[in-house]
Amino acid sequence: MGEPIAFRCVGCGREYEPWSVDYTCPRCGPLSGTLEVIYDYRVLARRLTPSSFAETRRPSLWRYEELLPVGVEHAVPLRAGWTPVYSCRTLAAELGLSALWIKDDSLNPTASYKDRATAVAVAAARKLGRAAMSAASTGNAATSLAGFCASAGIPCHIFVPKTAPRPKVAQLIAFGALVFAVDGTYDEAFDLCSEASARFGWYNRSAALNPMNVEGKKTGALELWEQLEGEVPDYVFVAVGDGSVISGICKGFSELVELGLAERVPKVYGVQAAGSAAIAHAFERHARGGPILPAEEPADTVADSIRVGKPRDVVKAVRYVAETGGGFVTVSDDEILAAGQDLPRRVGVFAEPAAAAAYAGLLALLRDGTVPAGASAAVFITGSGLKDPEGMLRGLPEPVVIPPELSAVERVLSQ
Amino acid sequence: MGEPIAFRCVGCGREYEPWSVDYTCPRCGPLSGTLEVIYDYRVLARRLTPSSFAETRRPSLWRYEELLPVGVEHAVPLRAGWTPVYSCRTLAAELGLSALWIKDDSLNPTASYKDRATAVAVAAARKLGRAAMSAASTGNAATSLAGFCASAGIPCHIFVPKTAPRPKVAQLIAFGALVFAVDGTYDEAFDLCSEASARFGWYNRSAALNPMNVEGKKTGALELWEQLEGEVPDYVFVAVGDGSVISGICKGFSELVELGLAERVPKVYGVQAAGSAAIAHAFERHARGGPILPAEEPADTVADSIRVGKPRDVVKAVRYVAETGGGFVTVSDDEILAAGQDLPRRVGVFAEPAAAAAYAGLLALLRDGTVPAGASAAVFITGSGLKDPEGMLRGLPEPVVIPPELSAVERVLSQ
Repeated sequence: MGEPIAFRCVGCGREYEPWSVDYTCPRCGPLSGTLEVIYDYRVLARRLTPSSFAETRRPSLWRYEELLPVGVEHAVPLRAGWTPVYSCRTLAAELGLSALWIKDDSLNPTASYKDRATAVAVAAARKLGRAAMSAASTGNAATSLAGFCASAGIPCHIFVPKTAPRPKVAQLIAFGALVFAVDGTYDEAFDLCSEASARFGWYNRSAALNPMNVEGKKTGALELWEQLEGEVPDYVFVAVGDGSVISGICKGFSELVELGLAERVPKVYGVQAAGSAAIAHAFERHARGGPILPAEEPADTVADSIRVGKPRDVVKAVRYVAETGGGFVTVSDDEILAAGQDLPRRVGVFAEPAAAAAYAGLLALLRDGTVPAGASAAVFITGSGLKDPEGMLRGLPEPVVIPPELSAVERVLSQ
Repeated sequence: MGEPIAFRCVGCGREYEPWSVDYTCPRCGPLSGTLEVIYDYRVLARRLTPSSFAETRRPSLWRYEELLPVGVEHAVPLRAGWTPVYSCRTLAAELGLSALWIKDDSLNPTASYKDRATAVAVAAARKLGRAAMSAASTGNAATSLAGFCASAGIPCHIFVPKTAPRPKVAQLIAFGALVFAVDGTYDEAFDLCSEASARFGWYNRSAALNPMNVEGKKTGALELWEQLEGEVPDYVFVAVGDGSVISGICKGFSELVELGLAERVPKVYGVQAAGSAAIAHAFERHARGGPILPAEEPADTVADSIRVGKPRDVVKAVRYVAETGGGFVTVSDDEILAAGQDLPRRVGVFAEPAAAAAYAGLLALLRDGTVPAGASAAVFITGSGLKDPEGMLRGLPEPVVIPPELSAVERVLSQ
């Protein structure tokens, strides 16, 4: 494995001995002081070649063990990562793109991108000998942790807003987690989870707080690079709630450049719902020379996974995205639903609303010319439509009920 | 690819020129005359070694192109197969097994085993130049075909009983299929689909009818063998509705032996719901020297995917399973639900009721001593719990709703 040389505070830059701190910089606190896991890239660059990862033959994110803080010996059986990437030629041509890749991370064990973070966080818990875990979540990180804790045989404590979609709650119940349905927002559930975890000694996997998350989440970028055989898309789109997924993706691409494995990073674009756009606004503010924090706003969108008023990884997300030359874009709920209905019909990938938002963001930046004709783009699908099927279907026609007779089929076809 | 040398009738043994017949033997008809795809195993045995498949580096069922009737050049982008297999050591030890493997086929593109068949059937449609497809289905084969047709850009016509679980219908709507919700049983939907496909020239993927299905479905066995590095479990368990999946799994193992790649086949056990057990009953009848057909009974079970009164692949299922030395077992709805609740808590895999039935079957045969202590067993999880979450959760406690206060957490924990 990668053997980190430091956990570094993104705020003050102070470096901590790896594993000496669980969560955030004690000086800077949770929002300003999230930690970055730092490796000795010069040593790794000498050891790694473009084919190093394939040589492991692992069809999971553990093929990147050399770039992860924990070794595969601590991994649970559930297989996270090495999800498919689809080249969508017809759709790319229609959109005027030279290439369009859909990275379908709904095909992770619990059907979301969050399994990447969880795989590494649960492995870290095993390495550290922690007896129980916890997480606050809009839903996906929770079901992910519940599934991986079941696989590990570790008790799991979950805090979700009581408005989480029913299929996500169903997964939580099925995996046997102790679920606290908080009568409040995600942000209140997050703070309560932090407090309870400190009180009861649970290893907390909540987004941003735990530096393992970004390490797991960076593997999506590593995979995309490897699956495209070293090609780096011009643009990458990903939905943004807390900002951890996009921070991970940016870090993954940037490490590839640092290791001499890629020549450049893509312009990474974060997509937020117009009604839940705290990071997009912080990015604009920061671009004008203002401070990133405080970043706290009301959050309201149909896309429950990115309904986040007080994003916890806003500092990394803003800085990392800026370094790629990308940015943020906001889309309306109508655009999200339209994109979410278009995508499965066009490419056979059924995304949850938040994941569809990433595709909506690409469409928006094609329309306004930010993404020029002839560019190549990749879109991360970060959660399955089965996580919230009714959310996606609003306005689509229901199936025709017919008696079991051929004449009824003929009538429908002739309409 | 494998270049079949014949399509052979399982009833009369008559061999047809490959691709000269789409569905079943014109002499024997749909139920008695399903077709088997036959290859020149002597030629293939000379060409193939245990590492031939890994050398393709394809993380999909197309790694077995040499044993498939259609080449990868006709495949759509969606990635079917190469799903994970989990070694469940703790659970195996508790059950007295030397090994227990869970093959999680819910991680296919549309979240069921049916994607294996669809991948090959849709590739066949492209090879044959067919302009539209159709299928009758309890739900999973339908959503699978709808997804792959979307990926292929082919119109898709679906016939499901109007009682299909909502998330499956949601997937169908999302993928843009033309859905006929038949006011009748699955069996009536099946017959109507056959009639309409003949009338309108749609290439029909319905189970058993289309010989491509078993070819796709056999790849689950090939993968299990390859992922276990040539080890063959003593017992394999799979849920049975129409009998196509289990026929495919048996054929896969038997071809490995025929090719000299495996030394033996496992004892394959089909698991049916007690209330929908037409194939199990046909197997018993046949074992006593009676005829396999007719096999038609009322069908009633919580496991919608195996709620099949008139199974279409009963002949193959009975014969192939007998050849492995395995058999059939029936389980009650209560056993199915208990198994479906146990599995995600123990191994982190959330299965739909039908898929959980396979695990229930293993437990039943452990109890009655058919599966002896110290044996090894593999269980195929053929569909995701997200396909029917409410079906799985009956009787499980709902999450506790609490205000966002630590004292509320403490109250719950102290209860």
